Amino acid sequence: MMAGENQPPHQVVIVGGGFGGLYTAKALSDANVNVTLIDKRNFHLFQPLLYQVATGTVSPADISSPLRSIVSKSKNTKVLLGEVNDIDPQAQKVIMGEEEIPYDSLIVATGAKHSYFGKDEWEEFAPGLKTVEDAIEMRRRIFMAFEAAEKETDPEKRSSWLTFVVVGGGPTGVELAGAIAEVAYHTMKEDFRNIDTNETRVLLLEGLDRVLPPFAPELSQQAEASLTRLGVTVQTKTLVTNIEGDIITLKQGDEVKQIAAKTVLWAAGVKASPLGKVLAQGTGVECDRAGRVIVEPDLSIKGYPNIFVIGDLANFAHQNGKPLPGVAPVAMQEGQYVASLIKQRLKGNTMPRFHYVDRGSLAVIGRNSAVVDLGFIKFTGFLAWLSWLLIHIYFLIEFDNKLVVMIQWGWNYFTRNRGARLITGKETLPQVTVEEGYYSKEKGRQPVNV
Amino acid sequence: MMAGENQPPHQVVIVGGGFGGLYTAKALSDANVNVTLIDKRNFHLFQPLLYQVATGTVSPADISSPLRSIVSKSKNTKVLLGEVNDIDPQAQKVIMGEEEIPYDSLIVATGAKHSYFGKDEWEEFAPGLKTVEDAIEMRRRIFMAFEAAEKETDPEKRSSWLTFVVVGGGPTGVELAGAIAEVAYHTMKEDFRNIDTNETRVLLLEGLDRVLPPFAPELSQQAEASLTRLGVTVQTKTLVTNIEGDIITLKQGDEVKQIAAKTVLWAAGVKASPLGKVLAQGTGVECDRAGRVIVEPDLSIKGYPNIFVIGDLANFAHQNGKPLPGVAPVAMQEGQYVASLIKQRLKGNTMPRFHYVDRGSLAVIGRNSAVVDLGFIKFTGFLAWLSWLLIHIYFLIEFDNKLVVMIQWGWNYFTRNRGARLITGKETLPQVTVEEGYYSKEKGRQPVNV
Repeated sequence: MMAGENQPPHQVVIVGGGFGGLYTAKALSDANVNVTLIDKRNFHLFQPLLYQVATGTVSPADISSPLRSIVSKSKNTKVLLGEVNDIDPQAQKVIMGEEEIPYDSLIVATGAKHSYFGKDEWEEFAPGLKTVEDAIEMRRRIFMAFEAAEKETDPEKRSSWLTFVVVGGGPTGVELAGAIAEVAYHTMKEDFRNIDTNETRVLLLEGLDRVLPPFAPELSQQAEASLTRLGVTVQTKTLVTNIEGDIITLKQGDEVKQIAAKTVLWAAGVKASPLGKVLAQGTGVECDRAGRVIVEPDLSIKGYPNIFVIGDLANFAHQNGKPLPGVAPVAMQEGQYVASLIKQRLKGNTMPRFHYVDRGSLAVIGRNSAVVDLGFIKFTGFLAWLSWLLIHIYFLIEFDNKLVVMIQWGWNYFTRNRGARLITGKETLPQVTVEEGYYSKEKGRQPVNV
Repeated sequence: MMAGENQPPHQVVIVGGGFGGLYTAKALSDANVNVTLIDKRNFHLFQPLLYQVATGTVSPADISSPLRSIVSKSKNTKVLLGEVNDIDPQAQKVIMGEEEIPYDSLIVATGAKHSYFGKDEWEEFAPGLKTVEDAIEMRRRIFMAFEAAEKETDPEKRSSWLTFVVVGGGPTGVELAGAIAEVAYHTMKEDFRNIDTNETRVLLLEGLDRVLPPFAPELSQQAEASLTRLGVTVQTKTLVTNIEGDIITLKQGDEVKQIAAKTVLWAAGVKASPLGKVLAQGTGVECDRAGRVIVEPDLSIKGYPNIFVIGDLANFAHQNGKPLPGVAPVAMQEGQYVASLIKQRLKGNTMPRFHYVDRGSLAVIGRNSAVVDLGFIKFTGFLAWLSWLLIHIYFLIEFDNKLVVMIQWGWNYFTRNRGARLITGKETLPQVTVEEGYYSKEKGRQPVNV
């Protein structure tokens, strides 16, 4: 395995420029290898802040960095813009359309996208939040809903335009619901003449018995209290059984309820990128129910020690039996581990198995509230918010000099301004002439308050 | 005309939230009138900086402000999101789909869009720059071209990907061409492994004998010298006779030339918004060849003293016989004039005719070069660039607190960074497998250097 003087350098191919792929590439920049980083987008997206784009605080470019800029100083690293649709583990090649790229080591880090648990027809009515385009679409729907309410004369329909339902009480759902409440009750309260934005209802639905299930129960409780203070109605133990048109159907215990809401946002589930399945077909490796690839203790896949799967696409369950969560720190550490492993192997050394160091979790709730769980200490409120802010800025700045984002946030914090609330894209005018008789189409479909 | 105590307040309807409409609304905020500001977008766009979005320096939201925020303090002003498709001057109503909005005074300020002089089929190959979506599309094409060149193996096609043609040597064309040259020769020069971005060609084509024709000839000369220093090839007295696929056909005197360029950007001409023609049909007022409405010395239209047309949609030729140019200062002053006129009329007073005060023109060329023509003084270079920067920031800040933009510019200036160069929207992957034999499809279509 050692690279001799006359051998061509070891070829590392990384598929995916998210946290996992990028940290692998960066950690390999000083190694005697050739790195090819493939992504279907020309930028790295700082996904934890995507909800801020969706709610009009920052612009997509503020939380993105061109991949080429990030690795431009790594002279051994080449960026390829393209989509990998197949992998040939026998010939050691990844396939992008008609192009074939050979590898000696392969890192697959294509992440996850949102999942409707088999109900893909819900996507039309309840978009999720994974890409820049998703965020722009959410932003369009949120701000268009207020515009439509302002023009709507039918009080029932107006109330439906002013009802926002966020499905899923994880960090993204909590952050979205908190931000929408702020938009309605603070940012835009002076902006309309026909509607009172205080009539806005923001509902956050969670299937389990508390929001932020990965956090400690006391933090979930405090998060719920903060959300309630912001004006969000939190409904736990609530399952969504149908979403169609502007009616969302819920099950709370044995009770079935319906809510009329023109804006439903999906933050409930993710499934792994389809490249996991492709890899499984070629190598016989197993995937879990969410499509994540079961990886070995060194993040390689069974029988293929030179193919690694990291980040949201990987199911690593070698620590406490539960797969590691799909968060940025896991992907970053996995990327750094795989880079070290490749470097050590080239020197003829071995590495101990991967071990994830959990430095804690954070979620932001509103203008100056957040929950922080560092394991040994848990705290909420303004101090937590400040920690959240500083940690996110630290990681943002690592990729690019996004000092501007910090200033923007500071400014927005003091002014409660959200200058990025543009309605752009295809449909930019409110469509308030909804088909008559929607409610009568199916009997018993009367909206019910929860 | 005087508003009695029992009369309902005078209804002012403004169509269009650009510089003209917004300045009218702001100047009327202290008047005893009701103002309805109608726009099809929910934001005011600072169009003079749109080329910075197209070339990846700032984000759309950085140069936009939500209309509702701008007028939220004006309690007599209501914003309506919608598109006016008809005007009934007899019944004094504007018509938006099924909605009718009555007015006592009407201001039409719907501006202009780019025009292909009857060759609308060129738009597909040579997009223009008027909306946020236009800028995002230009940005996608510019940055995708470099990505495609990086992947392209055919040297002829690669050169076509690296050729950028800007049609039109007015301020927008000059600004675009200068910015693309900076992107190619500075911002991205370390970013690629297969191509040398120094091989990029940026051509700026102008039909007249000099760039920036509205400026003094010596400034045009200096602008051309600055562009040449930046690496732009300026071709004056050059007419575009066809654009099809990636071939642009030119006429220089009697000579016909063809250039193979995958990216052609249109900055050559504008035509007035279609609402001008609608108004002409209803009132019998005349339009000029570009579709602009011929206005009276008080900016009203003939026979309808309560209908005003301002900004890019108006042809006001009462000063020196030439219509005032389609620039922001004209629209702003016209808006302020009409607001004063309405206020004076309500008091029973009259106003002298509109008189435009030309405070000068500016155009930016590159990183630290611009031309400034204040009439009594003309200058270029860094000082001109600084003036351009400060004046634009002053007007940006008037609408919203876009201090962030200033910091972003400062940052980009020192780092030559363009972090907003995201490829977003529909097609985000390079399509380098162009149909074989494109050149042979029609004989004699060989690309020619200019």
